Amino acid sequence: MNIRLKNAVIMPKAGAEAFRGEVQIADGKIVYAGKQNDRMYFAAEREKDCRGNLLVPGFCNAHAHSAMTLFRGIADDLPLREWLFDRIFPLEDCLTEEDVYWGTMLAAAEYVRGGTTAVADMYFFHDTAAKALRKSGMAVALCCGTNDIGGGDVKEHLKTMESRYHAYEGKERLKYILGLHAEYTCSDALLEGTADLAATLGAPTYIHCSETLKEVGECSVRRGMTPVEYLHKIGFFDCGGIIAHGTYLEKTDIELLKEKNVTVASNPSSNLKLASGVAPVYTMLKNGLRVALGTDGAASNNALSMFREMYLMSCLQKERMKDAAAVSAESALSAATEAGYAALGFNGGEIREGKDADLVLIDLDAPGMRPRADFGKSLVYSADTSAVLMTVAGGHIAYEEGQYEIGEKIEEIYRNTERCIKRLREAAEKRA
Amino acid sequence: MNIRLKNAVIMPKAGAEAFRGEVQIADGKIVYAGKQNDRMYFAAEREKDCRGNLLVPGFCNAHAHSAMTLFRGIADDLPLREWLFDRIFPLEDCLTEEDVYWGTMLAAAEYVRGGTTAVADMYFFHDTAAKALRKSGMAVALCCGTNDIGGGDVKEHLKTMESRYHAYEGKERLKYILGLHAEYTCSDALLEGTADLAATLGAPTYIHCSETLKEVGECSVRRGMTPVEYLHKIGFFDCGGIIAHGTYLEKTDIELLKEKNVTVASNPSSNLKLASGVAPVYTMLKNGLRVALGTDGAASNNALSMFREMYLMSCLQKERMKDAAAVSAESALSAATEAGYAALGFNGGEIREGKDADLVLIDLDAPGMRPRADFGKSLVYSADTSAVLMTVAGGHIAYEEGQYEIGEKIEEIYRNTERCIKRLREAAEKRA
Repeated sequence: MNIRLKNAVIMPKAGAEAFRGEVQIADGKIVYAGKQNDRMYFAAEREKDCRGNLLVPGFCNAHAHSAMTLFRGIADDLPLREWLFDRIFPLEDCLTEEDVYWGTMLAAAEYVRGGTTAVADMYFFHDTAAKALRKSGMAVALCCGTNDIGGGDVKEHLKTMESRYHAYEGKERLKYILGLHAEYTCSDALLEGTADLAATLGAPTYIHCSETLKEVGECSVRRGMTPVEYLHKIGFFDCGGIIAHGTYLEKTDIELLKEKNVTVASNPSSNLKLASGVAPVYTMLKNGLRVALGTDGAASNNALSMFREMYLMSCLQKERMKDAAAVSAESALSAATEAGYAALGFNGGEIREGKDADLVLIDLDAPGMRPRADFGKSLVYSADTSAVLMTVAGGHIAYEEGQYEIGEKIEEIYRNTERCIKRLREAAEKRA
Repeated sequence: MNIRLKNAVIMPKAGAEAFRGEVQIADGKIVYAGKQNDRMYFAAEREKDCRGNLLVPGFCNAHAHSAMTLFRGIADDLPLREWLFDRIFPLEDCLTEEDVYWGTMLAAAEYVRGGTTAVADMYFFHDTAAKALRKSGMAVALCCGTNDIGGGDVKEHLKTMESRYHAYEGKERLKYILGLHAEYTCSDALLEGTADLAATLGAPTYIHCSETLKEVGECSVRRGMTPVEYLHKIGFFDCGGIIAHGTYLEKTDIELLKEKNVTVASNPSSNLKLASGVAPVYTMLKNGLRVALGTDGAASNNALSMFREMYLMSCLQKERMKDAAAVSAESALSAATEAGYAALGFNGGEIREGKDADLVLIDLDAPGMRPRADFGKSLVYSADTSAVLMTVAGGHIAYEEGQYEIGEKIEEIYRNTERCIKRLREAAEKRA
């Protein structure tokens, strides 16, 4: 659909000056972003008066397990091990493709409700997750999270990964990223095999890394190296990629990641809620490492709100560094937009001609957004998802003032997710 | 207005089981809260179908400087001293009564938009602030924040405090709390005089206390005591009261506060953003100290959202204690509701017959609130202000699905706050 968004205030990217103007969208791309224009570049099928509200680039959630929405609220206020082993794993053991479909649809609704237009999703049943997420128009990176902690043939794992990689090659706003669950859930053969596969394909990788102190400590005892040092040594990062979390990184880890152009997808609220720690984001940024933001899964957050992540990224660092000037709102907004897009290799994170039409209309006529001040600061320090009036993903209006256009009716998504979690609970109880 | 809220799920207080039912309100009080009823206790002038959404007690913001909304976004990402001395103080020097009126009206809009129904407001022009806040039906504690760092006659200060105290005695949902800005901005004579006045009146006190390490350190050097030890010694807490912040409290401080039945109004997000620290809330609760929650002023937060405070109260403690089970959602919800009401001496914080009709209708049909789980956990870990469908303050529907009924039109509030801050900036520049 060709869309004209008139009478907006446009903040083209984090830190850039906002101006009054309009955005024109055709075939999923931004074809014009500038001052109010007399001319339409394409016939607009939809013209929207933004009433002076703020257009900003859509958010990129750089680390998510979308379908875990099903487990939201199921295991709060529990120690990490009990959370994972007694609550989450038994349910995941019973997951079906249908569960993943509806859980991912619920996540899609929450993403677009909160202005998220791109996501790195690491979970089971990739094709199904892609199907669910793509209906909203979002850009989707399916991140492989293979492990062989419970056995399995390494060669088979690698073959599957490679064939999936090729199956998604050349797709529009949809890709498959080679990856593993974590250093501590994979055999050396799988870790090294994946590194070799990535080198052969010239492809970046994705992995949970240095999330907890325990993980880093155990790896150091086993290998005499941090997880980052080990992964770097086996060439896992040779074509770049993303590590999720990076809660505990030494200065030398940061240098190794920087050397290989690896992005850290930081998950401040998941790290808080699971008592994992506060990542050294200030130090990463200071050393030129790219930091993106993710929500992690809804079972450990529990919201999929990039507003919360931006706020926490900035404010937790202020407290960590004992410096109220540390990690500005602009840095957090940049992490939530262009850094995520760049890390995943999608063409967004900015409102500019030629970019994918991923953008969010922010309500400036809300008490928390008044008086008018620096819009970037308002977004990061004042706003929450109530500020989102409209989300456009790949030129598709996925959310607009209470209405969802994401391929399934919202009531159906609610009904089906309730049904799925009920069945999952019963199935897990039966097995126990 | 007599109101019937039908077809709701009611969570009567933090930690209590929710049930399907209805609430009937007459003359600002809850006259019925129970199962769906055939009988109306009073003729309902307004009947609302809650469509199965969740009624919870309204939030109490136990520490705020409401009119500082005017300064929102004016001084972000700055070191604390620059924030206060170069930006905030010069503007406050130029504040007029009209500025406080409109700034407080903007805060009132934000409060009810986010489900807040009671507030402890410490700022200038108390009568004006009360006028602005009471229009929304909120319960208002005007907290005196006197200091004599710039001179002034102690006897005059005490006389003013006493006369104001009496002027507000016996008012409905409106009171004046004796108090001072902080130990470090008041002379010994003023501190001791206020303690004596409180003893004479049998009145609790209010003060900023132990907000920063610097404050505690300097007091310890000057007095050989922590601020809490000193205030305890001079009898400042003899009739109970509230300290705002309590970011740095020793175990002995906590015991002294507990002994005097003092409540700590914790402000987790202000403390983060100004890099002040994370209060030892877990230890306070463990030692039986009452903890309430506040947003502090919008210049240092920048939102006036109790959702953010609840979330941070719980999750920051998990990280601080390295225990994902520390400070549950119920504890945070309790701090945001009954603890605040109890500390301020208002008759709310619970949905029960005889209580003031302070309640919030929460949207359960939002992606982040699905699947249905424990409502307390959903409120604290998933929700933000987008979840608020309706706020009833003192039996008055102050906010309902985008509409405000707070005594001034929302557009007028926006227009006037923009005008006020513009004038303030110009006035401050002229003086500089």
